[in-house]
Amino acid sequence: MRIGLLGGTGPEGKGLALRFAAAGAQVVIGSRLGERAGAAAGECNARLASPLIRGTTNEEMLAESEIVFLAVPFGQAVAALVAYRDCFRSGTILVDVTVPMRFTDGLPAYAQPEAGSGAELVARHVPPGVSVVAAFKEIPAHALAEVETPLDCDALVCGDSREARDAVMAAAGLIPSLRPLDAGPLKMASVIERMTVLAVYLNRRYRRRGARFRVQGI
Amino acid sequence: MRIGLLGGTGPEGKGLALRFAAAGAQVVIGSRLGERAGAAAGECNARLASPLIRGTTNEEMLAESEIVFLAVPFGQAVAALVAYRDCFRSGTILVDVTVPMRFTDGLPAYAQPEAGSGAELVARHVPPGVSVVAAFKEIPAHALAEVETPLDCDALVCGDSREARDAVMAAAGLIPSLRPLDAGPLKMASVIERMTVLAVYLNRRYRRRGARFRVQGI
Repeated sequence: MRIGLLGGTGPEGKGLALRFAAAGAQVVIGSRLGERAGAAAGECNARLASPLIRGTTNEEMLAESEIVFLAVPFGQAVAALVAYRDCFRSGTILVDVTVPMRFTDGLPAYAQPEAGSGAELVARHVPPGVSVVAAFKEIPAHALAEVETPLDCDALVCGDSREARDAVMAAAGLIPSLRPLDAGPLKMASVIERMTVLAVYLNRRYRRRGARFRVQGI
Repeated sequence: MRIGLLGGTGPEGKGLALRFAAAGAQVVIGSRLGERAGAAAGECNARLASPLIRGTTNEEMLAESEIVFLAVPFGQAVAALVAYRDCFRSGTILVDVTVPMRFTDGLPAYAQPEAGSGAELVARHVPPGVSVVAAFKEIPAHALAEVETPLDCDALVCGDSREARDAVMAAAGLIPSLRPLDAGPLKMASVIERMTVLAVYLNRRYRRRGARFRVQGI
């Protein structure tokens, strides 16, 4: 499985790259500048002590990836989709991991887009033939990056294409100690994105960095 | 600790009564009709093989309880608060466990009140001197009622009075295998109520009844 990261040089992108590469997937970090992507890939490979991750331009990454994670900050998501619109292959699955959040008086709050959720906003800006799936939104970059620590949590996956959702669940299932759960249609992202807000709140309240969710009873 | 249940003859009320009584708390089930509350209490006591739970009218329950769980369906919450407004003791903590939810095409959806969340709507209708805390919203009645099965999950507790929140966390902490977590101000209920919608979805998707949440990394 060839996994690409659009804007993958930030903490979330590097965390995903590390976990997927450690699980044996072919991972390509994309960036506006190929050299920056190369540096991020080199940093991740040093962590894994294995040259499994490549870095290149977003254009080249998009040309060769089957599943692409949108790993830019939420505020840059639409601009990135507009900028690389013509580079997507038809049939690509775009996994939106972004969360619209702001801080008011030091407290995290959900910044609900008019579309209903960040994922639904993203879905309005992908080219035809690209399916949007929301996943990994509620898993903190910090927890992803600690590859030696089992995640022991669930990956809530939602999207309107059952086929695309299944493909992302299969990809998430490659990562040991991570259980993918089918969370339904894309609009369920409005729940999952808010859970990220709660996780950020709990991290602050309890002075931790890796709050994430496990659904018991399933 | 004296725990009362306002409208406690439904599944959520009985589930809470069972768990708290099994943990050694004094529990009073309230109902519009005292005899109906008595029947529910008898049913619960038979389950526990111990006469720990009493049933009486909502008026009498309110006169003697320190923590009162609002355990009616969400659609009846405001009417119940209006009906029993004069019966609340000053200093009572009201724990809102209701969730505004509807079903569209067989799928659960959040029915967001104009107040922001069900808990914030409830808070607008309590008499002065009563603090509102949201808790147990995301724990299914079915899971509560299975007293022999460890819950192994968290109780997300939010409210604007730190003192009231701490009291409810202390109460929740009486229940073995349930970890109370401080989820912040009352408006965080808009996240937690939506998590209930996700849990209901997951129960349907995976043909289970007890989906509930555990926060890992805290």
